[in-house]
Amino acid sequence: MSSRPLDDLLQPVAGNGLLHRRLFLTQGASLLGAAGLTILAPRHAGAAPPDVPAWMKVPGPPASAYGARSKHEEHVQRMPNGLPGAPGAGGSRTPHEHLEGIITPSALHFERHHSGVPDIDPDEYRLLIHGLVDRPLIFDLNALSRYPLVSHIRFLECSGNSAGNNAPEPPQMSAGGIHGLVSCSDWTGVPLGVLLQEAGLKPEAKWLVAEGGDAAAMSRSVPLDKALDDAIVALYQNGERLRPEQGYPARLLLPGWEGNQNVKWLRRIKVTSGPAMTKDETSKYSDLLPDGRALLFTFPMEVKSVITSPSGTMAMQGPGLYQISGIAWSGAGRIRRVEVSADGGRSWAEAALDEPVLPKALTRFRLPWRWDGGPAVLQSRAVDETGAVQPTRTALVEERGLQYRYHYNAIQSWAVAETGEVRNVYA
Amino acid sequence: MSSRPLDDLLQPVAGNGLLHRRLFLTQGASLLGAAGLTILAPRHAGAAPPDVPAWMKVPGPPASAYGARSKHEEHVQRMPNGLPGAPGAGGSRTPHEHLEGIITPSALHFERHHSGVPDIDPDEYRLLIHGLVDRPLIFDLNALSRYPLVSHIRFLECSGNSAGNNAPEPPQMSAGGIHGLVSCSDWTGVPLGVLLQEAGLKPEAKWLVAEGGDAAAMSRSVPLDKALDDAIVALYQNGERLRPEQGYPARLLLPGWEGNQNVKWLRRIKVTSGPAMTKDETSKYSDLLPDGRALLFTFPMEVKSVITSPSGTMAMQGPGLYQISGIAWSGAGRIRRVEVSADGGRSWAEAALDEPVLPKALTRFRLPWRWDGGPAVLQSRAVDETGAVQPTRTALVEERGLQYRYHYNAIQSWAVAETGEVRNVYA
Repeated sequence: MSSRPLDDLLQPVAGNGLLHRRLFLTQGASLLGAAGLTILAPRHAGAAPPDVPAWMKVPGPPASAYGARSKHEEHVQRMPNGLPGAPGAGGSRTPHEHLEGIITPSALHFERHHSGVPDIDPDEYRLLIHGLVDRPLIFDLNALSRYPLVSHIRFLECSGNSAGNNAPEPPQMSAGGIHGLVSCSDWTGVPLGVLLQEAGLKPEAKWLVAEGGDAAAMSRSVPLDKALDDAIVALYQNGERLRPEQGYPARLLLPGWEGNQNVKWLRRIKVTSGPAMTKDETSKYSDLLPDGRALLFTFPMEVKSVITSPSGTMAMQGPGLYQISGIAWSGAGRIRRVEVSADGGRSWAEAALDEPVLPKALTRFRLPWRWDGGPAVLQSRAVDETGAVQPTRTALVEERGLQYRYHYNAIQSWAVAETGEVRNVYA
Repeated sequence: MSSRPLDDLLQPVAGNGLLHRRLFLTQGASLLGAAGLTILAPRHAGAAPPDVPAWMKVPGPPASAYGARSKHEEHVQRMPNGLPGAPGAGGSRTPHEHLEGIITPSALHFERHHSGVPDIDPDEYRLLIHGLVDRPLIFDLNALSRYPLVSHIRFLECSGNSAGNNAPEPPQMSAGGIHGLVSCSDWTGVPLGVLLQEAGLKPEAKWLVAEGGDAAAMSRSVPLDKALDDAIVALYQNGERLRPEQGYPARLLLPGWEGNQNVKWLRRIKVTSGPAMTKDETSKYSDLLPDGRALLFTFPMEVKSVITSPSGTMAMQGPGLYQISGIAWSGAGRIRRVEVSADGGRSWAEAALDEPVLPKALTRFRLPWRWDGGPAVLQSRAVDETGAVQPTRTALVEERGLQYRYHYNAIQSWAVAETGEVRNVYA
């Protein structure tokens, strides 16, 4: 029980009705009704039990071998899109506006494929480690699974996430439609360093090339320092074996680094003295600058956040008390702080962070908001443990230009209209 | 990089080949081969790339709206069983021997139903809060979802979990078959205290009765202290809305307390001055003592652990290096330490714990083991942050007798035979 007086907590802590993040943590919540802050008047009831609904009058079906979600939730879907080029190229986005917490269900984890999802027989799967090693090795899945495993909750983000916000006009899409190329899972795999050292690294080894087992043979170069730091060959996602679209039966996981580097259907690791300059890191996944040059090997995903509720395409349900909720993450480590604004960035209030706040993982933030029914512009601004601050869109565009397709991490602005409509705006 | 000499790390730290938990965290791992500790000889390869498999020769299917697991993983299932009584009564168990990490996929979360799974239309769902309150309230799902949410990763365990080990002969089942009535999820919901205080608690309020919307109207009494501490009305599990078999659209979640208390399909909370003594807390879910009396309201699940690999019904793949892996949890808070024995409890070594170690959540532990091919008895012993130590089976049976059907938390012993067979034993 907090000793902080309720009156204090009911004072806005920033413009346009933002309230203190501890509001709901106090016993004073009992006074919300008296303070005119009841969230959404539930119906007052008599003392009698409610009517017995139809579903209580007959026994339901028994336990099952593998569960499915309710048929009433089937509208919650990823948003697949195809891209020109190879058949199967394209992706799908996590519908964050429908989700909560920090774990993304595997069935709704974002996808990005360059030639579709290969159907790999685990008995025929092989991983080759060769190049600048003492002993080139081939692992079958059985051998790989015998190595020591380690588990960590980590986000994965496509470097092209949120690039829609570089368009001249703000796309009118949901939070997931714009920012859905990020997801977060409990990943389990073999530390890559153990496998590399089993093969024995030669002194001139400095990089490796990871090749995927899809028809595109998607390939990326990785500095050896990262491979020996926290990289794993992931075999499990959220407890069970990887899903096919996440690289079944094995993928590279480079925590905090752009999604494309985390090569799926991993079939080959060649240890090298320098980067291989593959098509996937030169013609694509390089960052075009205003002067026509391009940055290569911009690996870490920077500090970022987005409010998922309320968010684009949603509608408010009338003035009253709301909880603003969203996700924050950084490839550099833990989120230190998330601030929220309801007046387009003129004033800010610190949000509450749900425990656990994990390195290189989604962090859920929340803040109570009393919407008075007037226009508002909601923003969130994340700060990570290195002190890096999420930039405004204006600052990002000024620095990088509008041709920059990757690593967009600017503050998202959602405008709330008097009608209750929530729209994407550049503010 | 550790400066600890490899020679030190290769010295067993406990009987029968248990090695130091930091063995794989050192650069010295490069010397494992030289030390004769290669895990499972991968095939040595030439310098050429591997053959191009069939699945790389054609593009695969594109991204999809809702993913499914590989057809090659469909053997990983819960183990449903029916119970006499009402149709739909029974449960299913999480196959922990196939899983990794700390998050249980929702499709494999254990179940326990008393009259099957009701098919609830979310538009018709209602939650009534009444009894010793100032304002009886009825919430529809829309109103409930407007309240502040909070997310936490928490385990859920049926109090009848592991009771098979009270049989005269050890059941020859898998880790999940014996201990699969525990699972762990990222749960999101409304703090129950906020809802209760919105209704206004009368001074004489001390307990509540939670009633489920299944045909059994499963009901349990809950002390108000717990309801106001960390209880939530859960709406989301692992990011998406609750699965039907977990209480869709809303369930009670009482972190650390026996599963049955966490009433699913929550339809009614009646605030009372004392427990209601429902059928579900008197004729069932009470703990029969040797003298014929029964303990009521034994809520917290005690400190516990089980090795999931290697475990019952598995077969070893010949002498060599293995990683022992398992799960530990406690309803009293965080796991402080897990110790592992390979000689039936004569000597113990401390296991590594994967981060994060969260309160009232599964914690994954791991330890390297060099199996010499001889007989071994593997055990794990968890200690929680209160200092509580998981008991031996002998001590538990001595204290409680063999008629005690709930809250079995004794140390599990897996015997490894020279043939490689792994069996459940009472040791």
